[in-house]
Amino acid sequence: MKSYIQEKVNAFKDQNENRARLLINCPDQPGIIAAVSEFLYEHNANIVESSQYSVDPEGGEFFIRIEFDCPELQEKSQQLEDDFQKIADTFKMDWKFMYVYNVKKMAVFVSKEPHCLLELLWEWQSGDLMADISMVISNHETSREMVESLGIPYYYIPANKDIRQQVEKKQIELLHEHDIDVIVLARYMQILTPNFVETFKDRIINIHHSFLPAFIGANPYERAYRRGVKLIGATSHYVTNDLDEGPIIEQDISRVDHRDNAEDMKKIGQSVERSVLARAVKWHLEDRIIVHGNKTIVF
Amino acid sequence: MKSYIQEKVNAFKDQNENRARLLINCPDQPGIIAAVSEFLYEHNANIVESSQYSVDPEGGEFFIRIEFDCPELQEKSQQLEDDFQKIADTFKMDWKFMYVYNVKKMAVFVSKEPHCLLELLWEWQSGDLMADISMVISNHETSREMVESLGIPYYYIPANKDIRQQVEKKQIELLHEHDIDVIVLARYMQILTPNFVETFKDRIINIHHSFLPAFIGANPYERAYRRGVKLIGATSHYVTNDLDEGPIIEQDISRVDHRDNAEDMKKIGQSVERSVLARAVKWHLEDRIIVHGNKTIVF
Amino acid sequence: MKSYIQEKVNAFKDQNENRARLLINCPDQPGIIAAVSEFLYEHNANIVESSQYSVDPEGGEFFIRIEFDCPELQEKSQQLEDDFQKIADTFKMDWKFMYVYNVKKMAVFVSKEPHCLLELLWEWQSGDLMADISMVISNHETSREMVESLGIPYYYIPANKDIRQQVEKKQIELLHEHDIDVIVLARYMQILTPNFVETFKDRIINIHHSFLPAFIGANPYERAYRRGVKLIGATSHYVTNDLDEGPIIEQDISRVDHRDNAEDMKKIGQSVERSVLARAVKWHLEDRIIVHGNKTIVF
Amino acid sequence: MKSYIQEKVNAFKDQNENRARLLINCPDQPGIIAAVSEFLYEHNANIVESSQYSVDPEGGEFFIRIEFDCPELQEKSQQLEDDFQKIADTFKMDWKFMYVYNVKKMAVFVSKEPHCLLELLWEWQSGDLMADISMVISNHETSREMVESLGIPYYYIPANKDIRQQVEKKQIELLHEHDIDVIVLARYMQILTPNFVETFKDRIINIHHSFLPAFIGANPYERAYRRGVKLIGATSHYVTNDLDEGPIIEQDISRVDHRDNAEDMKKIGQSVERSVLARAVKWHLEDRIIVHGNKTIVF
Repeated sequence: MKSYIQEKVNAFKDQNENRARLLINCPDQPGIIAAVSEFLYEHNANIVESSQYSVDPEGGEFFIRIEFDCPELQEKSQQLEDDFQKIADTFKMDWKFMYVYNVKKMAVFVSKEPHCLLELLWEWQSGDLMADISMVISNHETSREMVESLGIPYYYIPANKDIRQQVEKKQIELLHEHDIDVIVLARYMQILTPNFVETFKDRIINIHHSFLPAFIGANPYERAYRRGVKLIGATSHYVTNDLDEGPIIEQDISRVDHRDNAEDMKKIGQSVERSVLARAVKWHLEDRIIVHGNKTIVF
Repeated sequence: MKSYIQEKVNAFKDQNENRARLLINCPDQPGIIAAVSEFLYEHNANIVESSQYSVDPEGGEFFIRIEFDCPELQEKSQQLEDDFQKIADTFKMDWKFMYVYNVKKMAVFVSKEPHCLLELLWEWQSGDLMADISMVISNHETSREMVESLGIPYYYIPANKDIRQQVEKKQIELLHEHDIDVIVLARYMQILTPNFVETFKDRIINIHHSFLPAFIGANPYERAYRRGVKLIGATSHYVTNDLDEGPIIEQDISRVDHRDNAEDMKKIGQSVERSVLARAVKWHLEDRIIVHGNKTIVF
Repeated sequence: MKSYIQEKVNAFKDQNENRARLLINCPDQPGIIAAVSEFLYEHNANIVESSQYSVDPEGGEFFIRIEFDCPELQEKSQQLEDDFQKIADTFKMDWKFMYVYNVKKMAVFVSKEPHCLLELLWEWQSGDLMADISMVISNHETSREMVESLGIPYYYIPANKDIRQQVEKKQIELLHEHDIDVIVLARYMQILTPNFVETFKDRIINIHHSFLPAFIGANPYERAYRRGVKLIGATSHYVTNDLDEGPIIEQDISRVDHRDNAEDMKKIGQSVERSVLARAVKWHLEDRIIVHGNKTIVF
Repeated sequence: MKSYIQEKVNAFKDQNENRARLLINCPDQPGIIAAVSEFLYEHNANIVESSQYSVDPEGGEFFIRIEFDCPELQEKSQQLEDDFQKIADTFKMDWKFMYVYNVKKMAVFVSKEPHCLLELLWEWQSGDLMADISMVISNHETSREMVESLGIPYYYIPANKDIRQQVEKKQIELLHEHDIDVIVLARYMQILTPNFVETFKDRIINIHHSFLPAFIGANPYERAYRRGVKLIGATSHYVTNDLDEGPIIEQDISRVDHRDNAEDMKKIGQSVERSVLARAVKWHLEDRIIVHGNKTIVF
């Protein structure tokens, strides 16, 4: 990674050496917030931001994200987690502490179209996307020059459906070797096997275009054009084994009109994809997302 | 119709006694604009606004909407149309002159949910929707009081799929009797027969909710909620025999998030439906829409 | 008030007979959330929604809004407040409990232009704005018929700067007599005296148009048009003694272009004013706003 | 300029070797469109897109932008302009033919903050901003490396108000030497003299942040934060001698809320500045803007 980006990352780590986020998801019942906030108070943690949501106050599901500062956090984090286990057991919580100074390691997968990869790299260079982009994996050589010029390793791994298993084996080795936290499919046009998806559950983010109505199948932009749609959209979601059907993280649209031909619509669609994916990835990096069933809570 | 609305309509007619719109659609070739603008100039018409669009400059389709003022228009309109026939023949034009002082006669169809009807009536009362709302037809009595309090006749015609033909026969009689120009389906939950659709081709405007992805079938809001969609949309279109598949006039969306339950999403969806339908109807009333194949050109 | 609106209000009260909101504002320090949530838990209250914000974690200001359900709330509310006093003293809190079943009594002030008043009445009729609109006060007779047809008392009180004190005396008497909670200036074109403003501190909501750049003085729309602005905006704020300078609640804009003349811009501006004011009023009615210094926290 | 960008520019020139735009502005009267379209037809030009606007049909101002294809345009352009002079005289037109294959030469001025420069370079690299970025001029060295890495000359010319005339002399020499068509002030924090402005009349585009209300003077973001504004905006305009007061090309806003501190607002403001400036520059490059008095017509 280029030195001016490395500097930004280091400054961020220093600023956040005592900051963590606690994410909880459990059956709703009275007393959860009291117990958790009492716990944090006793451990000298100061709550900076907290967001809570209950599906249905009576007998529903409870979600909370608390961001807090705690002196000497790096020394105390293990103790904190051990102590928390008791509360977690009482309320049957799914929970995790995320430490902000642990900047997440990210891998980007891309095929030929570079627009989404470019957006991520731009945001990253300008310091707006705080991650360690550890590698780019592609089944094409198209983006190598651009990626390597930023000091990021580029792995060219040809792929097609006949060699899917070998390809994924290589990819998973690389990802594990570099201890990757999150994978972004920035227009990676290969289907992933259930094994791959399971290995990185709730940690693979995808982007695809979306239309009203849906134009499933070939040439969606051509068909959207012929139908005269007025909106072009994009959806970013976590990958599950149902193709394009995982929990939605973010969506957006852009207006088009009769003057836009299929080619224009594609360009506009790519622009929406870029911004939707960038937002989804940022929220993931900031631990703002809780996956619950087939939906997301984005705090 | 209430007297203060009638006053607004009359004032509008007076202001526009010499104003017309010419809409043309023909194969593209050089010289069309020259011929049409020369024609209008020779007939003392002054162009106020013109919008033009060609699908593909070479051998494609040409569309134009010209709004113009012409002294003594009401006396001269027949002559104008007769004279224009020659140009129309030369260029193989689909064309029509629309006279702004001929305020369009509108019928609104509604079932139980009144939100779209309400929006139209509110816009109409405030003078923002220039039409003669001649009648409301409904298969429920729900909205009678509100409609009649504005001096608009309300026809209650029970409907279901078994008596579709008799029902439509009655409706068509009423519509013809009052010389209706445009029909707005403001959440009218009955399917129309091909005969009805053909009788009012390109003059029936519908509204329905739209999702990314589409949730076809029952309980769309419940399923959109369970999938965690972030956008709720609506689409207004001309009715054709393909259910919900006619040329799209307007679409829009509103953002939702995890805090919105299925009921909230429905309410938000209704709000989008209201504004999308109102815009589509206004554009139709202002003769801004040309239907071409299965799409619209909205000038 | 018309009976079908009364019915909606009654249903709302029944649904919310055990629901309250607690709003707190105090110097930030560790332990606040723990203390408050412990308190609510001990009083059998279940937190439904909570939003928290701290200006600056170290030595800054702390804000929280908690919505909760508590069985037999109406019998226990006094005890709850008495018990809470101890925590409030410990943390030097500004605080209040607001009971959702106490539907707020609202007075609307209007001059000649009815668009903002109309918007409020429409939202109110459709059940989207939960208030008891107890009266409309105007220095013109323009809107009497419309207001009275909804069963709302209309007080015509002529006003100008020479008789300001007598006028406000009459108004304050009326407002006190009906125990008014919130006053909405829906384009009321009279300046209020410091005495009036002080009497209803943080309970008077105003709306005005806003431009980029500002066009202070006469004919703002004409000047905005001549400058070719591309955006027309509106700002809703609490009234203080600095004219148009109180804490901002909500703002929004609408796009315009060269085809919009000064008259069109005015109409577009009125449309933005309507929606901005309606949102601001709703947030106030839902106790979502904390005023702090010259700004608002909107939860 | 890098070879892959040069390739895109060359492809664009080839595609548009026969395409031009005619921009006209004159007193309104009947017959203008007839005369112009007849002229183009006689010269074998085929109209691809035309947009027209009249301020006021009776005795007002007339504006039109016509995009057309004409075989062998590069050979015939001089003749075309000579022949058009007669029509132009008849209708007292301000007019110009712009040839699309003449890709405009652009200079970007920047001070320390690189965000607007970066945006332009990104759009340019991806082929979305069709210009020949011939140079960057800066009173700081900050952006040299980034600019030169794209093959664009970077001129460091220190500047302050005491040496304004010498500085501008050097700048103007450079600009003339390279035959610059348009100057973009991408956060260039120096005031230009009337002489400079006059030399490049209607060809200097500026960007600045905008607020509702305006916060004129020092620390606008800090003051906007303390006032609790809900919108942060940006305005792009042609530079005239009234500082920040020239004809507005484009404006936009972004929402902020109480959680955004002054630093966040600045960042959000920069993001709006980037997109507003990019749109304004594109419209200029596509000859979509006619300046009239102190406003713009953007077709």
